[in-house]
Amino acid sequence: MSLTAVLAQIDKNLPAATERLLELLRIPSVSTDPAYAEHCQSAADWLVADLERLGATVSKRETPGHPMVLGHLAGEGPHLLFYGHYDVQPVDPIDLWDTDPFDPALQDSPEGKVIRGRGASDDKGQLMTFVEACRAWKEVHGTLPCRITFFFEGEEESGSPSLIPFMQQNAAELSADIALICDTGLFESRVPAIITMLRGLAGLEVEITGPQRDLHSGMYGGLVRNPLHVMAGIIAGLHDENGRVTLEGFYDDVPELPDEIRAQWQALSFDHAKFLGDIGLTEQGGEVERTPLEKLWSRPTCEVNGLWGGYTGDGSKTVLPSKAHAKFTFRLVGQQDPDKIIAALKSYVHSAVPSDYTVSFKGEKGAPAAQMSITHPAFEKARKALSDEWPDAAAYVGCGGSIPIAGFFKDILNMDAMLIGFGKDDDQIHSPNEKYDLESFHKGTRSWARVLAELSKP
Amino acid sequence: MSLTAVLAQIDKNLPAATERLLELLRIPSVSTDPAYAEHCQSAADWLVADLERLGATVSKRETPGHPMVLGHLAGEGPHLLFYGHYDVQPVDPIDLWDTDPFDPALQDSPEGKVIRGRGASDDKGQLMTFVEACRAWKEVHGTLPCRITFFFEGEEESGSPSLIPFMQQNAAELSADIALICDTGLFESRVPAIITMLRGLAGLEVEITGPQRDLHSGMYGGLVRNPLHVMAGIIAGLHDENGRVTLEGFYDDVPELPDEIRAQWQALSFDHAKFLGDIGLTEQGGEVERTPLEKLWSRPTCEVNGLWGGYTGDGSKTVLPSKAHAKFTFRLVGQQDPDKIIAALKSYVHSAVPSDYTVSFKGEKGAPAAQMSITHPAFEKARKALSDEWPDAAAYVGCGGSIPIAGFFKDILNMDAMLIGFGKDDDQIHSPNEKYDLESFHKGTRSWARVLAELSKP
Repeated sequence: MSLTAVLAQIDKNLPAATERLLELLRIPSVSTDPAYAEHCQSAADWLVADLERLGATVSKRETPGHPMVLGHLAGEGPHLLFYGHYDVQPVDPIDLWDTDPFDPALQDSPEGKVIRGRGASDDKGQLMTFVEACRAWKEVHGTLPCRITFFFEGEEESGSPSLIPFMQQNAAELSADIALICDTGLFESRVPAIITMLRGLAGLEVEITGPQRDLHSGMYGGLVRNPLHVMAGIIAGLHDENGRVTLEGFYDDVPELPDEIRAQWQALSFDHAKFLGDIGLTEQGGEVERTPLEKLWSRPTCEVNGLWGGYTGDGSKTVLPSKAHAKFTFRLVGQQDPDKIIAALKSYVHSAVPSDYTVSFKGEKGAPAAQMSITHPAFEKARKALSDEWPDAAAYVGCGGSIPIAGFFKDILNMDAMLIGFGKDDDQIHSPNEKYDLESFHKGTRSWARVLAELSKP
Repeated sequence: MSLTAVLAQIDKNLPAATERLLELLRIPSVSTDPAYAEHCQSAADWLVADLERLGATVSKRETPGHPMVLGHLAGEGPHLLFYGHYDVQPVDPIDLWDTDPFDPALQDSPEGKVIRGRGASDDKGQLMTFVEACRAWKEVHGTLPCRITFFFEGEEESGSPSLIPFMQQNAAELSADIALICDTGLFESRVPAIITMLRGLAGLEVEITGPQRDLHSGMYGGLVRNPLHVMAGIIAGLHDENGRVTLEGFYDDVPELPDEIRAQWQALSFDHAKFLGDIGLTEQGGEVERTPLEKLWSRPTCEVNGLWGGYTGDGSKTVLPSKAHAKFTFRLVGQQDPDKIIAALKSYVHSAVPSDYTVSFKGEKGAPAAQMSITHPAFEKARKALSDEWPDAAAYVGCGGSIPIAGFFKDILNMDAMLIGFGKDDDQIHSPNEKYDLESFHKGTRSWARVLAELSKP
């Protein structure tokens, strides 16, 4: 079957494919906020209908949360499972968006055309690159070079609570030769990349309570400990002067980088000054003795994602507040155990608050880091396919983010997973003004068409 | 002139005096909400009429905000200015009130009769103790033992924007031998108290910006410094392990407590365990080497009143935020200069942020501490008068809060001010279900009758 014709069909389809993506982006499928539950259903319905147009056998599967979409499309070659997620992040702070996040549009930018809107890059745009590649194969040849299972989730941005039970209950239906995941980016916005390691995640929300009620800072200040000061001390104490996390046993299960991987990463000549410069910074943070790529890909972190307490409105209120709150997450590597890290944080918080304070925890969650089996032959085939499409040869890279599903495919379904994506560093995913380059969408679709062709080869 | 007859008249008048106070409390003179402006006028009119009934020459004086009430009542002895405020706090949250805040009533409570309603204690009830004392003197003797100027404000709960200009423009008319202010409380709800020192205030809001936009904590975490961590470090660094504020020069203008005052405070046998226990705490905070009353009255503090940044909604968002915010206030003592303290905080913040961060400040404000001249003979006279009325001898106490008007009398009119009040710790001022004990109202009125008698003595 001719790949050339398929690529030409993708080029021809681009305007219509873009319209389809805009339609999906208009559905505000924010998974973390119950007010948007109905829209998550709509996004799932939209995908069911679109896959049916491809000729797939599709069903929407209800879960205790948002539904899964599961579709099967016949094909000749190996059996691939493609995973993506149709849910999106909340849009706050909404006043920093230049356009309505759910009224997406194709816009001109100094770097070319972009698709602007919440979910354009994470993950609706990426997900649709694969769907559009399948559509072009189908339109040109009437069939696909591989057998495909589509697996779309609607809870990725809210911790995927239904994912593991669903995978366990539908293990047979989900089984395939390898899983493909499109939720990552190009290295340095340019080099096609296959992820070989992902950091894990551990999260916990902490509330500390000092005085039983908010106090007048004049009447009580000086004798009563301020919970905001105590929380600040807790946060400040989590890193030492070398940027290392101070929690007991935190580095116990963190391996050193193998020399071979270190050499590969060195060859990437990562421009960290540009990486920082793009976000207005010049100074590196983090562990002083590590290289920038190690810090981003193979070293664990501890971050406060949210912090609040006291009076945060306009003007001044001289309150000595009762409570302080912080949301913590850790990025994990190697064999770090999320439960052990969370236990260490709890123990540290308890030891750091005054004895008359109370502490409560919630939002506990965790997923270990993942390491891909690049000895699987699909990896080298995909690397060739990507290198054929893009000006730069494809690279094996790490990823600082956490995509727990990669580990789940291995642990629950005993399948290897290959993460390939076309996002760029300035896509502003999880932030206002999210976008996906039209080039990412177009060449991403062409990339998958090529990957399907390569993987179908013996 | 017989004081005994005046006190008997006050006892006889109590039911009528209570009715008058209830009438004033029925006027919803909330100063901060423009919807109540007319009611502020009504409260001022009510006071004008009541002072006229006493035989005073009274006028309502318009300001850009709510009016002042200024009245003069002839008398034999020294010239006293009495200050109070007729405006009240808003009543939100209204659903936490057990009764209508503006349908006040005399109620039975386990601790005796209370006058329940907004403004009962702050400050209409307190203000009327003085007016009723004058009324009894007038009724019994046809004249007063002192010459009185009444000065009632209607903007105290909304920042007193008209106060300084009014004092400057009417300096001659407001001049008297000493100012009396009735807006404070009994020490430990029991001991009559004269305030001899008030802490000052300095405030500043700080915003620090690291990366230009919110980042994905997986993609950037480890290489990029988190502004929430930097802010936590700034806050944690503001106190040393002994609870002292670390800002350069912070204690330069903080005097040691004179031995005489220290001995007086020691004699008060302040029950700090009960004070902390009432708010659910057992441990003292603050400077380790200071006594509880020093910490509350004569030592400066640094408090974060509000702190925020990142994602603070429900659930989790793995953001590495662009900005962190904190609102700081300092309680000042002695000769501490608010401008100098604010400059020291700014300089510290600049030194504590990474060189590629930006910092911005707003909401700068300050007022120095006030120290009363207790060598003024009126103080010992008032102390004797209060000690005669109450079971406990009156005490000279400090006040950790900031009551700027005391300083204004000194700075603008070159008058000393004496702060005496009869509020109790559980009056719930600024909160739902505000009350004033009938005992506070009754013995407060008797206290002022005695103070007038003492001050009239040569």
